[in-house]
Amino acid sequence: MMMHAVSARSVGRDLGGWRDDAGRRPAYRALADGIRLLVHDGRIPLGAALPGERELAAELNVSRTTVTTAYSVLRDEGYLSSRQGSRSTVAIPPSAQRYGHGAPARRTAGDDIVDLSYAAMPAPAREVQDAYESALQSLPPFLDTHGMEPHGIGVLREVIAARYCARGLETTPAQIMVTSGAQHAIRLLLGALTAPGDRVLVDHPTYPNALEAIRRGGGRPVPVPVRPEGGASRGWDLDGIRSAARQTAARMAYLIPDFHNPTGLCLDEAGRTELARIARDTRMVLVVDETMVDVWLDAPPPAPVASYARSGAEVVTIGSMSKSHWGGLRVGWIRADQELITRLVGGRSANDLGTPVMDQLAATRLLGLGDGPVAERREVLRAQRGVLLDELSARLPDWVPTVGAGGMSLWLKMPAPVSSALAATAPSHGVILAAGTRFGIEGAFERFVRLPYARPADELRRAVAAVASAYEALGVTRDPAEPALVV
Amino acid sequence: MMMHAVSARSVGRDLGGWRDDAGRRPAYRALADGIRLLVHDGRIPLGAALPGERELAAELNVSRTTVTTAYSVLRDEGYLSSRQGSRSTVAIPPSAQRYGHGAPARRTAGDDIVDLSYAAMPAPAREVQDAYESALQSLPPFLDTHGMEPHGIGVLREVIAARYCARGLETTPAQIMVTSGAQHAIRLLLGALTAPGDRVLVDHPTYPNALEAIRRGGGRPVPVPVRPEGGASRGWDLDGIRSAARQTAARMAYLIPDFHNPTGLCLDEAGRTELARIARDTRMVLVVDETMVDVWLDAPPPAPVASYARSGAEVVTIGSMSKSHWGGLRVGWIRADQELITRLVGGRSANDLGTPVMDQLAATRLLGLGDGPVAERREVLRAQRGVLLDELSARLPDWVPTVGAGGMSLWLKMPAPVSSALAATAPSHGVILAAGTRFGIEGAFERFVRLPYARPADELRRAVAAVASAYEALGVTRDPAEPALVV
Repeated sequence: MMMHAVSARSVGRDLGGWRDDAGRRPAYRALADGIRLLVHDGRIPLGAALPGERELAAELNVSRTTVTTAYSVLRDEGYLSSRQGSRSTVAIPPSAQRYGHGAPARRTAGDDIVDLSYAAMPAPAREVQDAYESALQSLPPFLDTHGMEPHGIGVLREVIAARYCARGLETTPAQIMVTSGAQHAIRLLLGALTAPGDRVLVDHPTYPNALEAIRRGGGRPVPVPVRPEGGASRGWDLDGIRSAARQTAARMAYLIPDFHNPTGLCLDEAGRTELARIARDTRMVLVVDETMVDVWLDAPPPAPVASYARSGAEVVTIGSMSKSHWGGLRVGWIRADQELITRLVGGRSANDLGTPVMDQLAATRLLGLGDGPVAERREVLRAQRGVLLDELSARLPDWVPTVGAGGMSLWLKMPAPVSSALAATAPSHGVILAAGTRFGIEGAFERFVRLPYARPADELRRAVAAVASAYEALGVTRDPAEPALVV
Repeated sequence: MMMHAVSARSVGRDLGGWRDDAGRRPAYRALADGIRLLVHDGRIPLGAALPGERELAAELNVSRTTVTTAYSVLRDEGYLSSRQGSRSTVAIPPSAQRYGHGAPARRTAGDDIVDLSYAAMPAPAREVQDAYESALQSLPPFLDTHGMEPHGIGVLREVIAARYCARGLETTPAQIMVTSGAQHAIRLLLGALTAPGDRVLVDHPTYPNALEAIRRGGGRPVPVPVRPEGGASRGWDLDGIRSAARQTAARMAYLIPDFHNPTGLCLDEAGRTELARIARDTRMVLVVDETMVDVWLDAPPPAPVASYARSGAEVVTIGSMSKSHWGGLRVGWIRADQELITRLVGGRSANDLGTPVMDQLAATRLLGLGDGPVAERREVLRAQRGVLLDELSARLPDWVPTVGAGGMSLWLKMPAPVSSALAATAPSHGVILAAGTRFGIEGAFERFVRLPYARPADELRRAVAAVASAYEALGVTRDPAEPALVV
């Protein structure tokens, strides 16, 4: 009854280069691998029906037997469930669910598969426990109220505002709205600033969940490249942003100038000045996601992009505790001019009625600790990044990493466009990957893969061995027409 | 830059009967009162620009001076802020903000204004504190993970599933998704089940935030009456629901059959059987909001509507801790067939990345306590409902209350359609009200007002005195053409 079917065309588009290793695997196997990846990636929604066999065979220009066999492999593995009288719908089998969205605890005894599909760390356990204990002491006055705080509790907004002031950006608590994480902030901002059909400029590559939020809201993402290559053109293409803003009349841009996900790059002062100028000139609201801002590794970032703006309305800033502290807090925020904040608070009740008081109190406490816990985390990440780079240069020397000044992952260029195939087969070699195509639009980045260094060194070593083994099994040889890469 | 203007037409429509007491207040004053109410109600979004004076005067058929004067009253009071070179935009002045969405703690020393705009209670303090303490003990294993749980943690899903089983509705933990409250559940379901332009059947009156969520998602609410009048036609109009579902081809219905908000009515067994049959026959997904289900006062509700359904797909159930325990937990859930749950979990990352672990653990603990804390709450509510009814019959004997079998509020019919004017002037008499029109579509329920009995008896007494004083100041006399009402 609820079923909706994905079209053969969209499956064909998302499969991208699924047959690039043709001849090494039977076609039905390559197709099953490709579809399985799309399921894990969320590009084929769970519960959706796959296209009819005939239709998909025609779209992919393969025999119907190939599609039938691929579907039956997926059915055997539990990725397709058939129901009486209806088409097969997509599922994730229980055995694979710990890598999926529904994952309970990621690390279980004897678990030797490393999950590199996400870039997030476990909590600093002692600090987070202390913070919740302290929160419990501060809870009683709130228990005497109905407990719903769409704007966020005052003490937390004060601490957040003070942090911006300390970074050189004058901010009052009234300019802060607490959200349930950065993704929630993105969704609320899209709701307030865009209407269905509006264009939204995005970095390319960018954070996959932001792309998904834009699409679900009916927006149209307009990609502007963030180039990993070295030299003067590395990073943000500011002329490209200006002309894209002009040509598309985009209402909003969503950018990650502070240790960009997935590349780790950081926009310099001159770039920030120009970015703020573009927003002003084109009357496009610049939403700057600072989720990674505290995860600088080589050098601290310049002042917030918003501090380069002339008025308060042209740059909106998103912050989050998820990378600097812990994702389980689900606390983030929006900094904007007071007019937009009051509008966001007023409209929030259409979406949810607030972030829980307890976690806001814990976040207040954690932010009050200052840079200590985050500095420790940076040390750990520097060491882990070193291990990952060493392992990669030993085992996959022709993969070219982008090494930004911070963040939690490397963005690697492979000698061949096999990212989807690699991610599809990687689990059977012992590692879960997010294919490069997840970070782009319309199948871009088939030649790239993101490897986070947020897991401990021993896991990273095992992960790289597994990645190398999966890559080797694909039998890729460097395309002789491809020039050597310079970083 | 961010400004958007509301049209004269929409302001005119939302103002409804603003001049029904014409002659008692100057027109500019009535207009200012009406606009102030729309601002507090959220029907004019904060940060929006009001229509041009000439335009609004034409729409309302009043002189331009009336509009100019009303705007200047609002500007003096702080409800309109002017910025250099741009139109005036709507705001809530700091002095009034504690009654607004951004309210920090509701009860402050010396505060003698009673806020009856919401129907929610303070926490059962000891139980909630104990639950968080216990949650802190269970937290460590989660600290070793990234902490993001879009499906919800297993222990909580198990407790919720067991509660449905105990109510006669077989449910597995895989059929449960934990959400950040019921409103968040409504939003996620609208995203999964409807597309912009789709019709959604709703009770009329209904929960205002659900209407807002439907509108913001681009849906079109189709109202079906829930009649407060006594006799055989009291409550849900099932024939009306069937024919509305057929005629509009609605994809989804959002109904509150268990102690309906705002009337407190409860649908009987025969009605539930028919409702499930309608969903099956019309292929419309029935979303049943059970937020109030534990707040039965006179008699427990029949079995869940979902237990009258033949297949798992036709009825989806929403639950919440906000009314039975505490709104500050921000924990709710969706019960549906596994196919829809996997789809919701898979798509959630476009909206947010999960409900905080800590609050899920506390909710697990609270639900594990069984009916004890909720039974105490029911006792309190019964007594408070009695006080409210007594005070009303003493001071406002010609207001006709609907007394349902549960819930947290009375739905009162007044002798004249003055709800908007009453809510607009009530704060100056000492009470904050939600106008009846908030619970309806296109200005309906101007003759009704919702009075929650969720606050303590002394506040209810003061509130009714204030309501009576505000009502008296409006100078309403019963329309002689209006027949006496029978309950």
